[in-house]
Amino acid sequence: MKKIAVLLSGCGVFDGSEIHEAVLTLLALAKAGASYQCFAPDIDQLHVINHAAGAVAQAETRNVLVESARIARGDIKATTELDLSEFDGLVIPGGFGAAKNLCDFAVNGAAAQVAPLVAEFIGQFIAAKKVVGFICISPVMMPLLYGAGVKGTIGTDADTAAAFNAMGGDHQAAQVDEVIVDAEHNVVSTPAYMLAGNIVEVHNGIEKLVTKVLERA
Amino acid sequence: MKKIAVLLSGCGVFDGSEIHEAVLTLLALAKAGASYQCFAPDIDQLHVINHAAGAVAQAETRNVLVESARIARGDIKATTELDLSEFDGLVIPGGFGAAKNLCDFAVNGAAAQVAPLVAEFIGQFIAAKKVVGFICISPVMMPLLYGAGVKGTIGTDADTAAAFNAMGGDHQAAQVDEVIVDAEHNVVSTPAYMLAGNIVEVHNGIEKLVTKVLERA
Repeated sequence: MKKIAVLLSGCGVFDGSEIHEAVLTLLALAKAGASYQCFAPDIDQLHVINHAAGAVAQAETRNVLVESARIARGDIKATTELDLSEFDGLVIPGGFGAAKNLCDFAVNGAAAQVAPLVAEFIGQFIAAKKVVGFICISPVMMPLLYGAGVKGTIGTDADTAAAFNAMGGDHQAAQVDEVIVDAEHNVVSTPAYMLAGNIVEVHNGIEKLVTKVLERA
Repeated sequence: MKKIAVLLSGCGVFDGSEIHEAVLTLLALAKAGASYQCFAPDIDQLHVINHAAGAVAQAETRNVLVESARIARGDIKATTELDLSEFDGLVIPGGFGAAKNLCDFAVNGAAAQVAPLVAEFIGQFIAAKKVVGFICISPVMMPLLYGAGVKGTIGTDADTAAAFNAMGGDHQAAQVDEVIVDAEHNVVSTPAYMLAGNIVEVHNGIEKLVTKVLERA
């Protein structure tokens, strides 16, 4: 049985992991016969968004690991607990948490940096040439992690694609049901809610990405 | 196109809606060609559980509507905003939030009461004989809402089944892939994570429940 790590960034589209993408990643892995373990960095979120009001809750602080545990039903590990030998690959769902907590793309655009704990975690998979799947906005980390020329997609948004290229990546436009494979770097990506109009489109795109990840795992 | 209301109780298995059950309810509805609208009561949660540590976060207060909005990607309404004429039925996912926030079964067992805003909301569907689907632990509200003799399931847990009967219900043992239909009351229920060992079992059970709900909607 293949075992895949899933890196979460909180719990909620506007300040953490996009919940539908995260759950549908777990579903696709389990349906395909793989097992999974959720991870998250033990760091504070950039901020907390009231998802009903769409506004920053100024007084609140939440921890990425603690909130991610909601999606994982309590079964979560800190990124520092990774034993790489247990895992065949990694998948990273989207949501603004990927661009606010895992890296600071939402604040700094093409000048973004990956959070140190996150770079160390994903870097272990990359150094071992293990497959990594990036979903939705999380591919903005790819040029920072893999270096110049890495092929990936954030869908069709012109500004985000331009930033991907400005960081050294080689952006490939893709529709919601497409997966971009960079065989040389052993990395795959799909747009999900960067383009999806509904949860079924997200489900279909993520199922395709997980299939590719498991083929390469 | 049939339109179904989904009643949430927060965001996280230990103090709110079970996230997998909620997302897989939305997926099943959308896959079947139905549309949906998420609702939640605008009340404080009983408490906040740190899902990584499994302990009550004493200092924190969170609102059921605000946290439920995370699962709904911001598109949520308060229960008081219901226009019943728009909807063909209702589905209520589980998670401890159903037994801590929607009613107080987790605290008071068979002496439980349904929260007033929740009783008013669900009561409109019942009065109009519109179908309601209860998932996981949420069926403990059924005897309180429908009265004596209503048939439902919380799976096979003996204590919870006994409490269901003590409240006047007629409990039916069911496996994770089964749905109990009470045709007279137009209400269906399934165990999901009351019994499920993995997310695929939850997906399959909820898909069956949603199929039954839409047949009766």
